[in-house]
Amino acid sequence: MKGLWLENNQLQLRTNIAIPEPPSEEALVRVLYAGICNTDLELKRGYYPYTGILGHEFVGIVEQGPEHLVNQRVVGEINAVCGHCRFCRTGQPTHCENRTVLGIVNRHGAFAEYLCLPVENLHPVPDNVPSEVATFTEPLAAALEIQQQVALSANDRVLVVGDGKLGQLVAQTLALIGCELLVVGRHREKLANLEARGIKTDLAEAVKDRAFDISVECTGNAEGFAIARRALRPRGTLVLKSTYAGNLNIDASSLVVDEITLIGSRCGPFPAALQLLATGQVDVQPLIHGRYPLSEGLLAFELAQRRGVLKVLLEIS
Amino acid sequence: MKGLWLENNQLQLRTNIAIPEPPSEEALVRVLYAGICNTDLELKRGYYPYTGILGHEFVGIVEQGPEHLVNQRVVGEINAVCGHCRFCRTGQPTHCENRTVLGIVNRHGAFAEYLCLPVENLHPVPDNVPSEVATFTEPLAAALEIQQQVALSANDRVLVVGDGKLGQLVAQTLALIGCELLVVGRHREKLANLEARGIKTDLAEAVKDRAFDISVECTGNAEGFAIARRALRPRGTLVLKSTYAGNLNIDASSLVVDEITLIGSRCGPFPAALQLLATGQVDVQPLIHGRYPLSEGLLAFELAQRRGVLKVLLEIS
Ligand SMILES: [Zn+2]
Ligand SMILES: [Zn+2]
Ligand SMILES: [Zn+2]
Ligand SMILES: [Zn+2]
Repeated sequence: MKGLWLENNQLQLRTNIAIPEPPSEEALVRVLYAGICNTDLELKRGYYPYTGILGHEFVGIVEQGPEHLVNQRVVGEINAVCGHCRFCRTGQPTHCENRTVLGIVNRHGAFAEYLCLPVENLHPVPDNVPSEVATFTEPLAAALEIQQQVALSANDRVLVVGDGKLGQLVAQTLALIGCELLVVGRHREKLANLEARGIKTDLAEAVKDRAFDISVECTGNAEGFAIARRALRPRGTLVLKSTYAGNLNIDASSLVVDEITLIGSRCGPFPAALQLLATGQVDVQPLIHGRYPLSEGLLAFELAQRRGVLKVLLEIS
Repeated sequence: MKGLWLENNQLQLRTNIAIPEPPSEEALVRVLYAGICNTDLELKRGYYPYTGILGHEFVGIVEQGPEHLVNQRVVGEINAVCGHCRFCRTGQPTHCENRTVLGIVNRHGAFAEYLCLPVENLHPVPDNVPSEVATFTEPLAAALEIQQQVALSANDRVLVVGDGKLGQLVAQTLALIGCELLVVGRHREKLANLEARGIKTDLAEAVKDRAFDISVECTGNAEGFAIARRALRPRGTLVLKSTYAGNLNIDASSLVVDEITLIGSRCGPFPAALQLLATGQVDVQPLIHGRYPLSEGLLAFELAQRRGVLKVLLEIS
């Protein structure tokens, strides 16, 4: 089969990859669409060591697996877990100590014609959700993780820093809570997507100091962190939703003086994300920048790295 | 009056300072004892700009003020607040936007024969608490702030990093909760204080990775932070209890992947601290390294900076 293979920071289109044979407890999924995420770009830049097929946002059709799933359209949670470590036993499987992660850690990913995942990771996609929309389930679930970690109420003044793919999804999920929301970024055309949904936006420069209860950093760069930090009132909470290239240099004393909470946030609940897509409460269509066949995957990657580009999808089968 | 005056990173013993005249709503306090804290050492090193009399840990006798306080022995909260800003109005006076802070921000401190503080900041000291013990009320209250911010239970595995003045107080307060506590440091003789109270201690090198639910960083240095960070399980909480000289370089991506919470922690509740001193549940006597008259204040500062030295007290009147 064809697939986008990462090795020594080189991404290659390979055409002779063997179709995987699912171990017991796993299903074989034929990939329909897959989305390119910032993590994929960072893996390609070598920020984390990984060799194999990239990709972790996908929708596909089960070809081998339990009867109730075969021929079903599914999305899949990316952490394949052991089931018996202290995190699996305490209902925190995304932190399983023995996990592999689709297209990220020791498990071939979704930028290929087929992938394997544990059966328990798969969620059928409601019929009314188009496949390209379903591709957003994984990042949308990640956006929802914020609400699992931080108690948010309608009175909270919340700042989202970043108008990229993740910032847009985070903003839409937070808007549903009805909090006092502002999204800031550097791209007027991206912010316009959100304005069209009635979400307040502004340029990053306009953020008032110490004016927000909660800020969500979705840029993955030091400037974004600085904006999210200075926007917080004392005893405010800064949610780190992006990974960073290299270390961040932070004024830890000011975190002490202002008693700020910093909280890292990663994978979230798939069922809730699918529900938001099925009911249309979150609209991902404006985020789709383009669709490319797997054979043009390298070109699609080039495009996804460009400033101002939102989600690039691979149309695989 | 005599006082230790900081100006341009120079600490001087001045003998000709005018005795302050308390504004209305404030009391004049004759200082009995004052304690030298790491913040004082950092102010002297010029980490924060401050000019005036240093010192914020004290016990004294009210000489001018409301009748019910005159001639009473008191300790005092260090933040003098405006009473009408959004933080004062919401029960968070330690974050008052217009605060001055005793010996730290725009208010002369306790290393002098007299000081002024708002009447509402003063707490009478129970008769059975010796004056030198009462000097520890402020840092003990700061230690108790942790419990105001983080829900701790007997099942939690808690690591305290640092065997200095603050680490010792933090450890004693956490031990009262009955959690599974370990204190690590670099000074066997300091750790022995805690061992004598039945608190488990070890050298910092012995800390197991990812084995603690909560870690409390009490060293104020990057090595201490690194130990506190790597000791945490995924979804653990790191309490920052010390300020830092300069910035900290942190691996923010790992905070995201492990969904770690970082929380800054500063001033805490005086009444609870006084209660622990009055009932003897916390014992500060072993922390007192020496007592010096104000006239030997510069020497006392030299000593307080030395490795291995715990609390140095100024015996003022
Ligand atoms: Zn992703
Ligand atoms: Zn596990
Ligand atoms: Zn202090
Ligand atoms: Zn105020």
